[in-house]
Amino acid sequence: MKLIKTIAEMQQFSKSALRHRQKIGVVPTMGYLHEGHMSLVDMAHKLADVVIVTVFVNPTQFGPNEDLAKYPRDFDHDWSLCEKRGVDAVFAPEPEEMYCPDRSVWVTEEKLSRGLCGQSRPVHFRGVTTVVAKLFNATLPDVAVFGQKDAQQAMVIKRMTRDLNFPVEIVVAPIVREADGLAMSSRNKYLSADERIRALAISAALREADAGIKTAGRKALCGLAESISAKIAAASGRVDYVEALDADNLEPASESTRCLLIAAAAYFGATRLIDNVIINLD
Amino acid sequence: MKLIKTIAEMQQFSKSALRHRQKIGVVPTMGYLHEGHMSLVDMAHKLADVVIVTVFVNPTQFGPNEDLAKYPRDFDHDWSLCEKRGVDAVFAPEPEEMYCPDRSVWVTEEKLSRGLCGQSRPVHFRGVTTVVAKLFNATLPDVAVFGQKDAQQAMVIKRMTRDLNFPVEIVVAPIVREADGLAMSSRNKYLSADERIRALAISAALREADAGIKTAGRKALCGLAESISAKIAAASGRVDYVEALDADNLEPASESTRCLLIAAAAYFGATRLIDNVIINLD
Repeated sequence: MKLIKTIAEMQQFSKSALRHRQKIGVVPTMGYLHEGHMSLVDMAHKLADVVIVTVFVNPTQFGPNEDLAKYPRDFDHDWSLCEKRGVDAVFAPEPEEMYCPDRSVWVTEEKLSRGLCGQSRPVHFRGVTTVVAKLFNATLPDVAVFGQKDAQQAMVIKRMTRDLNFPVEIVVAPIVREADGLAMSSRNKYLSADERIRALAISAALREADAGIKTAGRKALCGLAESISAKIAAASGRVDYVEALDADNLEPASESTRCLLIAAAAYFGATRLIDNVIINLD
Repeated sequence: MKLIKTIAEMQQFSKSALRHRQKIGVVPTMGYLHEGHMSLVDMAHKLADVVIVTVFVNPTQFGPNEDLAKYPRDFDHDWSLCEKRGVDAVFAPEPEEMYCPDRSVWVTEEKLSRGLCGQSRPVHFRGVTTVVAKLFNATLPDVAVFGQKDAQQAMVIKRMTRDLNFPVEIVVAPIVREADGLAMSSRNKYLSADERIRALAISAALREADAGIKTAGRKALCGLAESISAKIAAASGRVDYVEALDADNLEPASESTRCLLIAAAAYFGATRLIDNVIINLD
């Protein structure tokens, strides 16, 4: 497995693979890898000949009061997980390699990124779209795999890829959960034992919502977000948002909605967690 | 020579060239081609094995009161010029192919694009960077050739390419002029015979400034922009801007400036013309 630290070397690696007619799959991550990320690696192996994992804690997607400095890092563990899973190259640039001091270019998405996480994290998605554009140009993938846990991020990146015509297929892989239902996340590490238990309220409430709609159909939609919020609050979670949206455009769910996204974000202690479920209404 | 109308076909064409280890050069244009554009094609031939000319009048770089609707078009002439000059493919998509109705992604450059043309054309460079990013992803070039006549545009595109890590070398080719000095431009077609003669004031004033600095050195810089403006105004040109800037960063020229850009924009009748000269101060 190759460790690549510079963009020039990364592009060279990928161009050489392309010349050998190999299909390149990339899994962009911020490191501190877990089985959620590894499921994306497995998916990439199914779709491509060469699998690249990028490990980069991207400063531009953190707001000034967010957890950039204390975001968990463990490169040795990341490296060994990638090695075990047959990754071909890990691209792990330093921030100085990715961003020039006088940089002045942003990629922005102006519709899908406004609500949900974009509301409480106003600069977040501008950082995400910009760094993903850069990572696409560094790794030159045929396919890129993202996790459904970051549902809005996946939609924003799909839109960016479409609107800027990146020659990249975006694949979104299902959420991977702990045995008790908690969605896997690098940020779960922040949770105290007590918070960890209470945080299960999010996934439990989403699971109940899913079951409710599967039983009662669209009429279960009425008051659904409020009911999920109440369940999270009952576990002393501080709700950032719970929304039932059209999964195709992130507009509020309506009569014409065929695929529903219920997305939730809540704080347990100082830790902000997100989770979601997609439900077919047909 | 191949005519390509869709992004998918364009990408396929370029990927096939890359697999055959051919170097791809692209010349992005808005059509209505003249010898200025053809000099870019010649340059591309020197640097690449396969030369693509894109012909697309990009709506997003025109402001609401600008000349999008009446921008000159003559595809048959463009086609025959490209054919004579050994171009391999002309990429000429319709606006509907380039822009989805629900598009929501922009590429923006926030420093170099603010002054000069960015001041009087506030949405212009956002449209340019966005469409060039799209054209890069459609044509997948190794090298892209732009004209020095659009000096600010060339700098903004270089910055975008660097900051988003497009694997593309940006080459800027010198201004091509008519025999009497007028910088070649598709917009020259708008000029009446009288305007055409008076418009020579721009290139003449820039030429005199160049000569003045070559004779007197940096001290000729004092009052230079005002003097050029006065000469353009004396020919009944309405000056948009005349500025003497550091060619490396578009900051006002200073003691440390080693390479000077004198850039001018002025209206003759309803036609806005731009021109510039780069002068080495060492």
